[in-house]
Amino acid sequence: MAVLLSTLATEIVIPVAAVIGIVFSLVQWFIVSRVKVTPERHAPPAGPNSKKNGFNDYLIEEEEGLNDQNVVAKCAEIQNAISEGATSFLFTEYQYVGVFMVVFAILIFLFLGSVERFSTKSQPCTYDAQRTCKPALATAIFSTVAFVLGGVTSILSGFLGMKIATYANARTTLEARKGVGKAFIVAFRSGAVMGFLLAANGLLVLFITINVFKVYYGDDWEGLFESITGYGLGGSAMALFGRVGGGIYTKAADVGADLVGKVERNIPEDDPRNPAVIADNVGDNVGDIAGMGSDLFGSYAESSCAALVVASISSFGINHEFTSMLYPLLISSMGILICLITTLFATDFFEIKAVKEIEPALKKQLIISTVLMTVGIAIISWIALPSSFTIYNFGVQKVVKNWQLFLCVSVGLWAGLIIGFVTEYYTSNAYSPVQDVADSCRTGAATNVIFGLALGYKSVIIPIFAIAVSIFVSFSFAAMYGIAVAALGMLSTIATGLAIDAYGPISDNAGGIAEMAGMSHRIRERTDALDAAGNTTAAIGKGFAIGSAALVSLALFGAFVSRAAISTVDVLTPKVFIGLIVGAMLPYWFSAMTMKSVGSAALKMVEEVRRQFNTIPGLMEGTAKPDYATCVKISTDASIKEMIPPGALVILTPLIVGTLFGVETLSGVLAGSLVSGVQVAISASNTGGAWDNAKKYIEAGASEHARTLGPKGSDPHKAAVIGDTIGDPLKDTSGPSLNILIKLMAVESLVFAPFFATHGGLLFKIF
Amino acid sequence: MAVLLSTLATEIVIPVAAVIGIVFSLVQWFIVSRVKVTPERHAPPAGPNSKKNGFNDYLIEEEEGLNDQNVVAKCAEIQNAISEGATSFLFTEYQYVGVFMVVFAILIFLFLGSVERFSTKSQPCTYDAQRTCKPALATAIFSTVAFVLGGVTSILSGFLGMKIATYANARTTLEARKGVGKAFIVAFRSGAVMGFLLAANGLLVLFITINVFKVYYGDDWEGLFESITGYGLGGSAMALFGRVGGGIYTKAADVGADLVGKVERNIPEDDPRNPAVIADNVGDNVGDIAGMGSDLFGSYAESSCAALVVASISSFGINHEFTSMLYPLLISSMGILICLITTLFATDFFEIKAVKEIEPALKKQLIISTVLMTVGIAIISWIALPSSFTIYNFGVQKVVKNWQLFLCVSVGLWAGLIIGFVTEYYTSNAYSPVQDVADSCRTGAATNVIFGLALGYKSVIIPIFAIAVSIFVSFSFAAMYGIAVAALGMLSTIATGLAIDAYGPISDNAGGIAEMAGMSHRIRERTDALDAAGNTTAAIGKGFAIGSAALVSLALFGAFVSRAAISTVDVLTPKVFIGLIVGAMLPYWFSAMTMKSVGSAALKMVEEVRRQFNTIPGLMEGTAKPDYATCVKISTDASIKEMIPPGALVILTPLIVGTLFGVETLSGVLAGSLVSGVQVAISASNTGGAWDNAKKYIEAGASEHARTLGPKGSDPHKAAVIGDTIGDPLKDTSGPSLNILIKLMAVESLVFAPFFATHGGLLFKIF
Repeated sequence: MAVLLSTLATEIVIPVAAVIGIVFSLVQWFIVSRVKVTPERHAPPAGPNSKKNGFNDYLIEEEEGLNDQNVVAKCAEIQNAISEGATSFLFTEYQYVGVFMVVFAILIFLFLGSVERFSTKSQPCTYDAQRTCKPALATAIFSTVAFVLGGVTSILSGFLGMKIATYANARTTLEARKGVGKAFIVAFRSGAVMGFLLAANGLLVLFITINVFKVYYGDDWEGLFESITGYGLGGSAMALFGRVGGGIYTKAADVGADLVGKVERNIPEDDPRNPAVIADNVGDNVGDIAGMGSDLFGSYAESSCAALVVASISSFGINHEFTSMLYPLLISSMGILICLITTLFATDFFEIKAVKEIEPALKKQLIISTVLMTVGIAIISWIALPSSFTIYNFGVQKVVKNWQLFLCVSVGLWAGLIIGFVTEYYTSNAYSPVQDVADSCRTGAATNVIFGLALGYKSVIIPIFAIAVSIFVSFSFAAMYGIAVAALGMLSTIATGLAIDAYGPISDNAGGIAEMAGMSHRIRERTDALDAAGNTTAAIGKGFAIGSAALVSLALFGAFVSRAAISTVDVLTPKVFIGLIVGAMLPYWFSAMTMKSVGSAALKMVEEVRRQFNTIPGLMEGTAKPDYATCVKISTDASIKEMIPPGALVILTPLIVGTLFGVETLSGVLAGSLVSGVQVAISASNTGGAWDNAKKYIEAGASEHARTLGPKGSDPHKAAVIGDTIGDPLKDTSGPSLNILIKLMAVESLVFAPFFATHGGLLFKIF
Repeated sequence: MAVLLSTLATEIVIPVAAVIGIVFSLVQWFIVSRVKVTPERHAPPAGPNSKKNGFNDYLIEEEEGLNDQNVVAKCAEIQNAISEGATSFLFTEYQYVGVFMVVFAILIFLFLGSVERFSTKSQPCTYDAQRTCKPALATAIFSTVAFVLGGVTSILSGFLGMKIATYANARTTLEARKGVGKAFIVAFRSGAVMGFLLAANGLLVLFITINVFKVYYGDDWEGLFESITGYGLGGSAMALFGRVGGGIYTKAADVGADLVGKVERNIPEDDPRNPAVIADNVGDNVGDIAGMGSDLFGSYAESSCAALVVASISSFGINHEFTSMLYPLLISSMGILICLITTLFATDFFEIKAVKEIEPALKKQLIISTVLMTVGIAIISWIALPSSFTIYNFGVQKVVKNWQLFLCVSVGLWAGLIIGFVTEYYTSNAYSPVQDVADSCRTGAATNVIFGLALGYKSVIIPIFAIAVSIFVSFSFAAMYGIAVAALGMLSTIATGLAIDAYGPISDNAGGIAEMAGMSHRIRERTDALDAAGNTTAAIGKGFAIGSAALVSLALFGAFVSRAAISTVDVLTPKVFIGLIVGAMLPYWFSAMTMKSVGSAALKMVEEVRRQFNTIPGLMEGTAKPDYATCVKISTDASIKEMIPPGALVILTPLIVGTLFGVETLSGVLAGSLVSGVQVAISASNTGGAWDNAKKYIEAGASEHARTLGPKGSDPHKAAVIGDTIGDPLKDTSGPSLNILIKLMAVESLVFAPFFATHGGLLFKIF
């Protein structure tokens, strides 16, 4: 049954959409670049946007009669330092990443090659023994290549995201002089650069890889898409560095800077005399921009690969229907176009004029993209799918209608929106949960912590029901393929999601720069307002990340089970149950490690900062410059060293369990860590977010109630600060890192499934 | 194949062992009662023990020349107040319990009776359709009766335990005047009263019930033991009141008393002017004695029932081998005798002379009982089991050897010991983990909380591996029967475990009484030493409780699955998976509720205490007595009201899920809540225990390191106090309550399984 979209059209549509996304992000970058950080005040460049982005407005400094030139120079200087720091981090990280990638690539090759003892002979296909497929050695080679490509794409996206973020922060600060709306646009456009580059790059590289691999594989789509899963593993392995390493980095720098600067030396936050201040600001970019980006890129790559690998053994693959086969990529292509339109609503169709319009504008982005995308999904499902087809479901082919697949993708998309809104409800200080937590500070830090933990636990309920419903719907309609496309649905608006998310740390940095450059109080008020909205959107982003991670892991888990040729994962067998309970324990083990890592890394930072204060003469007086780069290096080295134990736990667990205990136990471990990890991750993120905003609620004093708790320095505020500090590693390190735990273990199991199925379960074979 | 122990011998041995246990506990009670709390100083009663328990030693007061009479009178007065408070709590609780029991009994009757539409006709058996079994209506009636019996036995044990505890606390204080060894013996003997009464009562009532029911059921052992499961449900339902209600009670009173007394009024802890001080002391007995007792009694009853119900459809039941059938009860009988011998090691064979001998003595109890019990299990397995038999394993009969069953029980027993030791390692301030947490107080409350949480997460690892290994071994050897007897193995030394556990709160109370009665500093030092050891043993007790709860739940879960006639619980079906992920969420929902409940109940207490201070003239000056009873009533009412939401969550979830979604989803929920709840419970208990002992470590200042952190009132100490307060609800309310969540849902599912199997899954039937 032919579909409306021809193969040729598919081959054109996908790369075109990706290129449009890339061009759009470059345009945004160009627009941002027109905000100058050089002291000279040129005439505004001519062009249609000149009124918006030029210098035709009055600056706060001009109103207040301050000298504009000095401020701009200072901002440029700070931005340079942050950018240098970010680059220093990246380059050290890449050395380690390089070693890791090479070792892991060799491992993949050896494990997969050994399945058929490195034979170069073709073999009967796994799912259809009548036909002949390419040798396992080919899968080993191409999986390794795909792995490297996935890793490189993730690195590229993370690098560019960090570059634009560190390029935009000072520009946001400078624009804040002209108005909150102007500053918002700069921050948001920069976020969009990151979002679109990542989504489009990921899509383009995947598309090209498939087409290139196809030249060798030809008709063997089973082998082709099995190799492609390496792409997901590559993306996810990089995310380990991005999320875990970045998470440790950012909180080590943050806590280290605060403990010496604020506590011991009594200098304000973001003071340029603090040697760790640049590392702290770099950390925001490392953790929340590059880390989040690599995490979501990993999810995107993995859910695409999971869908593709299941599709390859379904009717799409068996009948070689190329357009339907690439349905996941078409959804992503449509997503880029929809997000492009959505972005215009924030940057061009409407203008932000007041502080209170920021949060609604960001929320509107989520709603608009979700509504439009639902239509987009319907269109793709209509033109790219036959009205009826079959999907591989653990040994049997299940008949699925195109409208059912539309529902699968949509339910994921809308579940994402619900998770986003629930997260907002529990972490924004506009609602009662955070206000209650703030109120509990009245009786001290202990009640604050108790209420905060309880809030985090409670915030798990609705997201889990949302995830459960999407799983049930998509699972019932289209088995594991349904889950995979539901995850893709949740991630289809990734460009907008990332734009909103990246906007947060950019605004945070902008506030820091304003503080460091000693700019007017009114500018800081504006950047603070941007930052407060950014806190909530950061929490929403984390909600998306964990929600999609849950779906992705389940899809990968399903693909793994199919590939490992086990038809049921029965909880009521000892092998599976011990896997389940040990798997459910892993998030705790992992969190204990990451939390302790932050502590140890922060301690190293404290020592270095103390050393500089003690040995550099004139530092406290502001006559000498601190050695920012050493702090950045300390933080980089410590974070990469400290991520080894948790990283090893994630990477070795599937290998050890699969090799020694076999695929049944490994299935249990994957299921256990998934259902347990999701809860820990959501509660940790939201607890941390709530504490942060409870503190901000007291500091801002925007309501009668808030003023009774403040001002800064009051006992309730002190209690709130303690909660905020506790929440830091929870929300920025241990919580989000769990996404990686559950995803990476699942994709690794999938990639190594041929090996485990052949050689796994040594321990049980011996006894 | 005949076993060595004849049916007649079994019918004699079990009740004799139970009676020996009861007599032994009465003897202990009698010995404790010879410590007089009346001011007159009688001559010591004649008897072989007179030198040990009489008044032949010098008292500290005599050495210091203080007036002994006044102190004794004051102790007696305080003890009376606590005892009155405890009685007041019990009687109010029983009103609610009564209503609950009646409603729930009716529910059981209606649900189970409706399975065959209340038909009085006999029916084909569920597992052997060839034979005829008693009507479902009989099962409904007898299950209801067994439920009531289980509840009443639990109430009785809890009541007596609380009575002896409130009877022993002042006596411990008074004995502390004569030496730490004397005080230890009194506290420990009183704990033993509780332990032996509970173990023996539970065994005796279960034994009698089986024999009485057998008169009606005759040859229908399937129906007989299905009805008996009601006993487990009754015990567990009471544990809901004991653990959750008691947990809320104790922390509401504790936090309420502290917030007004220590913070607002600046009077010391345990000051008799504080109206909530008696409620606080009552709370220790309510939560840690009655709550823990009902929890472990529930586990004991449930694991026995789970083992019996599986045995009834195995060769034991099919061939009507009565002795082998009652193997679980024989194990418990042996346990009572072993514990009796073990107790003598603490009370008679050795004497405690110095503070540092206390903890080793308690640890020795664990080791001795475990080693002896291993021999005991071997004997019972040898004389009560045929050398080979079959066990029902999800539809097939699995051949099991008697030595394999010996291993199943033993692995549970030893896993309990390992869990106990690991818990001790992570919560005792003699080891580095707690010392590291104490050290982290140097940088403030935030780092204390971060390190404490990380410690709790980490402490989960080894216990989970211990549980996993016991599950794997017992599951592999004897399927669900193996799991049930492994749980019984862990609980076989329950009398010793409870004695050690109850010793803690008795010592805690003794310290409080010494403080309130204004006794010499040296006496308080002695009771503090007893208390510090008690803190660790309390944590060990919690470790046992959750470990056994995990095994028990799994056994009940297995029995449920068998009874509900589903042969696999496949994670890879949407129905099961959504159950799994929602089940894994329930512990978080439940913890959020219980933590919030403590907050709300504490607030009510704060208001009442404030009211009394404001309206009773002369209270602060000590000329007027506060109204202790009202505070006790407030705490009682609040705790029972506050436990309704979490209680409803536990009780309604299986009913709703089973009725609407059916047995597959319910299986998922049970598995999910089990594997997730264990982690949350262990980490919460150990985190709380570690914070408590970190604070005590700083206060005691026993090492060079500890002294650098202290003294009381220093900044690190203040940070430690915050951690301790946060830990209170974690370790005494939300953590231990999770045992009830996972056990009660499982046993309820098992009891209602016939109904769910017949009428369940309405929602899926409609669509």
